[in-house]
Amino acid sequence: MPDLAPWITFRPEIRVLDCTIRDGGLINDSRFDDGFVRAVYQTCVDAGIDYMEIGYKNSKRLFPKEKFGPWRHCDEPDLRRIVGDNNTPLKLSAMADAGKSDWQTDILPKSESVLDMIRVACYVNQIPEAVAMINDAHEKGYEVSCNIMAISAAQEVEIVQALEEIAQTPASVVVIVDSFGSLYCEQITMYVEKYRKALEGTGKEIGIHAHNNQQLAFANTIEAIIRGANRIDATMSGIGRGAGNCPMELLMGFLRNPKFRIRPVWQLLQDQFVKLSESLDWGPSPQYNMSGQLNQHPRTAMAARSGPQKHDYVDFYDKCVGDV
Amino acid sequence: MPDLAPWITFRPEIRVLDCTIRDGGLINDSRFDDGFVRAVYQTCVDAGIDYMEIGYKNSKRLFPKEKFGPWRHCDEPDLRRIVGDNNTPLKLSAMADAGKSDWQTDILPKSESVLDMIRVACYVNQIPEAVAMINDAHEKGYEVSCNIMAISAAQEVEIVQALEEIAQTPASVVVIVDSFGSLYCEQITMYVEKYRKALEGTGKEIGIHAHNNQQLAFANTIEAIIRGANRIDATMSGIGRGAGNCPMELLMGFLRNPKFRIRPVWQLLQDQFVKLSESLDWGPSPQYNMSGQLNQHPRTAMAARSGPQKHDYVDFYDKCVGDV
Repeated sequence: MPDLAPWITFRPEIRVLDCTIRDGGLINDSRFDDGFVRAVYQTCVDAGIDYMEIGYKNSKRLFPKEKFGPWRHCDEPDLRRIVGDNNTPLKLSAMADAGKSDWQTDILPKSESVLDMIRVACYVNQIPEAVAMINDAHEKGYEVSCNIMAISAAQEVEIVQALEEIAQTPASVVVIVDSFGSLYCEQITMYVEKYRKALEGTGKEIGIHAHNNQQLAFANTIEAIIRGANRIDATMSGIGRGAGNCPMELLMGFLRNPKFRIRPVWQLLQDQFVKLSESLDWGPSPQYNMSGQLNQHPRTAMAARSGPQKHDYVDFYDKCVGDV
Repeated sequence: MPDLAPWITFRPEIRVLDCTIRDGGLINDSRFDDGFVRAVYQTCVDAGIDYMEIGYKNSKRLFPKEKFGPWRHCDEPDLRRIVGDNNTPLKLSAMADAGKSDWQTDILPKSESVLDMIRVACYVNQIPEAVAMINDAHEKGYEVSCNIMAISAAQEVEIVQALEEIAQTPASVVVIVDSFGSLYCEQITMYVEKYRKALEGTGKEIGIHAHNNQQLAFANTIEAIIRGANRIDATMSGIGRGAGNCPMELLMGFLRNPKFRIRPVWQLLQDQFVKLSESLDWGPSPQYNMSGQLNQHPRTAMAARSGPQKHDYVDFYDKCVGDV
């Protein structure tokens, strides 16, 4: 127990990444219009946010341009239409999924791109490809992060093994990803300790990407910060797949570094998100509560939320429990 | 850091109190209809919940019957219309506020009431009346709790002094109440330790009543449980004043005691709360986020949410910051 009040101090090493367009793009096939993306970009700059993840570097074969918006591929002309040469302190990131990305060809050398960072996302069974992707992005000149997804569904020894492999790569960040939104704070504590131990001496930073199925995304993010995570993911209004993510407006209220400014975030929520929430569904609704509680992938919950049985909670519960 | 996984075990001493009708009554002047109250009551019984707080014992002079529904006064005929003689394991509670209650006359001897517990709510500056109320309710035969409200706005020495006074009363429970929803988990840890120390040797249990302004009600409730709180408040769908409370459906998903059953809660949410949420406003909306972050009473946020400027977040923010 602290003697004083550490919660009113700040750790200057903390970096905040906004993944509104990237993670939010999972609920609208990355079809945000330019005005919206530009508003998020400007807000990130104005709020003193460190990174903005503007989309995916996903394969055009698997995610054809006819079906998916530009933020699924992050082609250079699309990026520059929004950010120009990005002459701001804000760094830009894109995510490349193992198994879903033509990274060899689609990720350009850093000298030809306005992107600063590539975040490689993978499941524990995709570590070999992830390692190749990390090396490739590093050689091309990017800062690289490795985001191991769905750790609540992986075995402990698999995670330890994965961390051992990643420890030897040039990735400078490794992010704890609670894809199912099923972790309680005690588990976050355990994972952060595990990641710290595995990455000790490598100089790599630990990140946290929490989902909000049980209304714990913000709390788990705080817990990870307290335990030493310095790379923090959040989204405006918590938008994201299913229950969404740690809300930026709550994170900004918690962080005490005076470089962060919350007012631009409220302005964005007022100008853009009131309207958006009329057509898109995210947040910790009952079906997402259940999939989080049961440590299940949110896909069935998303299907239930989008159909006419949106409010048949008990039917959904019975199906979830039957599936376990 | 635990070696194993304590989060899948349970502590048999934990008791859950549903305060849906009592705290929810703050957003509709306690005007829930009988069918709704009966449904909540039956759900509490079916879900294995320990206590149901069915309303307030507030003064009819200050809260006239013409303006407030029956759950503001909890007259015996109103209670019995819903619960009969309450021949169930569920215990019934009512809350009496210091300064707002004619407790001398309105709280009947236990032998004449279907209530089991009186919870005395007070601010730190009302401790003398609270002590008198605790003694009165105990002498009348009730189990008694003392809920010190708005502790985030009280000075540390005031809380320690208040606990010293309460330690000498026959109250068997003392509840930590984060009325403004402004506390972070580190602060919850600190308060639980403080309450434990002050109440050591008295046999009194510590309770937690969290508000959800920063989406931390559930997380803070878990934190309090981990630190030793055994009396836990929650409401169905998190309904309650302003941002609302710790949602019962999340708490039930966390608690591992097999006596608790979550399915009846989903049924209630489906049958009663989908409709109710169309006419009542609660939950962690931006204005409540802000009042929580700034440790302010939610009353201005409630006013802002109920008017035509419901979505003028920046205007509200500027006013809040100007007020500090």
